[in-house]
Amino acid sequence: MQQILADDVAALARGCAVLGTGGGGDVRAGALAATRAIGEYGPVPLVQLADLPADALVVPLSAIGAPTVSHEMIHGEDEPRRIADEVERLFGRPPAAVMSSEIGGSNGVAPVAWAARLGLPLLDADGMGRAFPEVQMVSMYVAGLPADLVIMSDVVGNVVTIRPVDGLWSERLARAVCVASGSSAMMADYVLTAEQARGAVIEGTVTRAVEIGLATEHAADPLAALEKTLGAVRLITGRLSDVERRTSGGFVKGTAVVEGTDACRGRTLTLEIQNENLVAIEDGRILAMVPDLIAVVDSETATAVQTEALRYGQRVAVLAWACDPLWRTPKGLETAGPRAFGYDLDYRPLGEVPEGTGTSWEGAER
Amino acid sequence: MQQILADDVAALARGCAVLGTGGGGDVRAGALAATRAIGEYGPVPLVQLADLPADALVVPLSAIGAPTVSHEMIHGEDEPRRIADEVERLFGRPPAAVMSSEIGGSNGVAPVAWAARLGLPLLDADGMGRAFPEVQMVSMYVAGLPADLVIMSDVVGNVVTIRPVDGLWSERLARAVCVASGSSAMMADYVLTAEQARGAVIEGTVTRAVEIGLATEHAADPLAALEKTLGAVRLITGRLSDVERRTSGGFVKGTAVVEGTDACRGRTLTLEIQNENLVAIEDGRILAMVPDLIAVVDSETATAVQTEALRYGQRVAVLAWACDPLWRTPKGLETAGPRAFGYDLDYRPLGEVPEGTGTSWEGAER
Repeated sequence: MQQILADDVAALARGCAVLGTGGGGDVRAGALAATRAIGEYGPVPLVQLADLPADALVVPLSAIGAPTVSHEMIHGEDEPRRIADEVERLFGRPPAAVMSSEIGGSNGVAPVAWAARLGLPLLDADGMGRAFPEVQMVSMYVAGLPADLVIMSDVVGNVVTIRPVDGLWSERLARAVCVASGSSAMMADYVLTAEQARGAVIEGTVTRAVEIGLATEHAADPLAALEKTLGAVRLITGRLSDVERRTSGGFVKGTAVVEGTDACRGRTLTLEIQNENLVAIEDGRILAMVPDLIAVVDSETATAVQTEALRYGQRVAVLAWACDPLWRTPKGLETAGPRAFGYDLDYRPLGEVPEGTGTSWEGAER
Repeated sequence: MQQILADDVAALARGCAVLGTGGGGDVRAGALAATRAIGEYGPVPLVQLADLPADALVVPLSAIGAPTVSHEMIHGEDEPRRIADEVERLFGRPPAAVMSSEIGGSNGVAPVAWAARLGLPLLDADGMGRAFPEVQMVSMYVAGLPADLVIMSDVVGNVVTIRPVDGLWSERLARAVCVASGSSAMMADYVLTAEQARGAVIEGTVTRAVEIGLATEHAADPLAALEKTLGAVRLITGRLSDVERRTSGGFVKGTAVVEGTDACRGRTLTLEIQNENLVAIEDGRILAMVPDLIAVVDSETATAVQTEALRYGQRVAVLAWACDPLWRTPKGLETAGPRAFGYDLDYRPLGEVPEGTGTSWEGAER
């Protein structure tokens, strides 16, 4: 894939929604923005990291905030320009490429619009390979790049540059700025040279998202096609019987309960949610947990269902598949494993939790 | 006054406490820091604005946060250096002088220590001529300089640079960053060339604070000496009969009631407080209101009593005197007049509220 055409946006959006594992924001606004920007500025070149000169500046961009807010408060069109200008001011040269910080959800699609407006190529990579809720939960941080620069802008036009002492302070300060800006802002988290990016970003994820979207688009059995493309296991097929959600401190938190139907009749799966689907539990046994990916999809169309769109009675399947190996390293798990979200659980890779001997959920501290 | 010696610090601190009108933070920690820094780095040159070249950079520094927090969380010694480094990074040249953003309270004294550590002179000026609680309440803003840069650092070592669209956003974003840093941070609000500073800062206030401090230090009647030096009217002499204080969102808010004694027996004065003493009311009549200055001082020693040190039974006098003319301009009153603090009151200069016909406090909206 050499460039992203207007015709590619729908498939990209479908794929990003699946990789969002419930979070990352609704892809529709991002898809509209991407289609419109391509119409106005032309197709967006998709570049591979190997094609960039060593000192080329890559700017990982994302929206930050509560997904429920971003539905009602649309980002402006000038935030990427203000951030790019600040990059040029600080580094003395302009950015060479835009990267999605987070391929999952809206942040996987919207960078197409941002790149188009800036006249820059999009890097075929991201910082997560999925969606995560916190600023420091990116591959650059796990790879050991110092989390020493965050540049933010909001719809009002404010620009805030944070030089945090570490990744946790980058999250704490960026979140405070985001909440002050109305729980919605745009952010460059790190500014990387291509050389720094090697081994510190997850490559190929834009292409991968398009593949996921295309796989289900015309399939006779979309769910089977999606499972195959993802290499996923189906945890349950059923109906949503309970959904509890609240927005606090810029996050959506809650639980969703799926009652099994058909072959899964009699079973009950509970999902723990913090913007994304983080833990899947059945009868006190953990079936899948973060950083592995857990997606709720429509059982007919295999379309991903975002956390904030979950509703009683929906017929869904819950799929789980392995995260990028980077997230299974000690630093990866420390950053975005179950304990990073407050669950008193040791990470067990998907499929390695033995039947009947899993961690008891009752004992978990929240 | 050509320089500030260790021996000048006590008088400076006494004067700054009076100009703090209850807020601006306790002067003792700042005085200790100033004395220690002068001991280590030598006296601090005091420069007049007219002595600086037009393009010399003046950095107005202040601590931001809840005074009650700053008692327990001491600022580090590296914040001024980190802010100065960021100034040099952004402007391509180092600062030429430190200025107190706020001569009232701790922020009037501590800059002596910051200037000493940075090896820079202190400018004989400040941005308020008193103390105010919010970031945009500075003379530079009233003079029409765009509020387009705030540089903050905290004890942890984080550095945050804010380019706000206006002064209100500078307050909103700086406050959010301050709260995230534990309700205590150090800040450069604006970076000015000497040319920009002319007419946009209140000159001579460091010298003035020292004069105020010296006037009361050895006087036979300190209260009378203070009144004379300030050109103040005494609103009441009495005893604190009620104090109500709470800390919320980084501010100390509350009321203090003074029951008159001696010649004032039978009278009751109520002070409305938001970090500083903002409004003095007697029998529904406003005797003095912000931006004019209202200080509570010990009736024997004329030592200023900070908001957070007010306590039941204390014998005090309440003094009021006129603010700098800049604050009485329409932009000054819009920025720091009674309505800027949520009081539904039209500003009347001190002494111009006719007996018995003043604004009724009962009708005031909070």
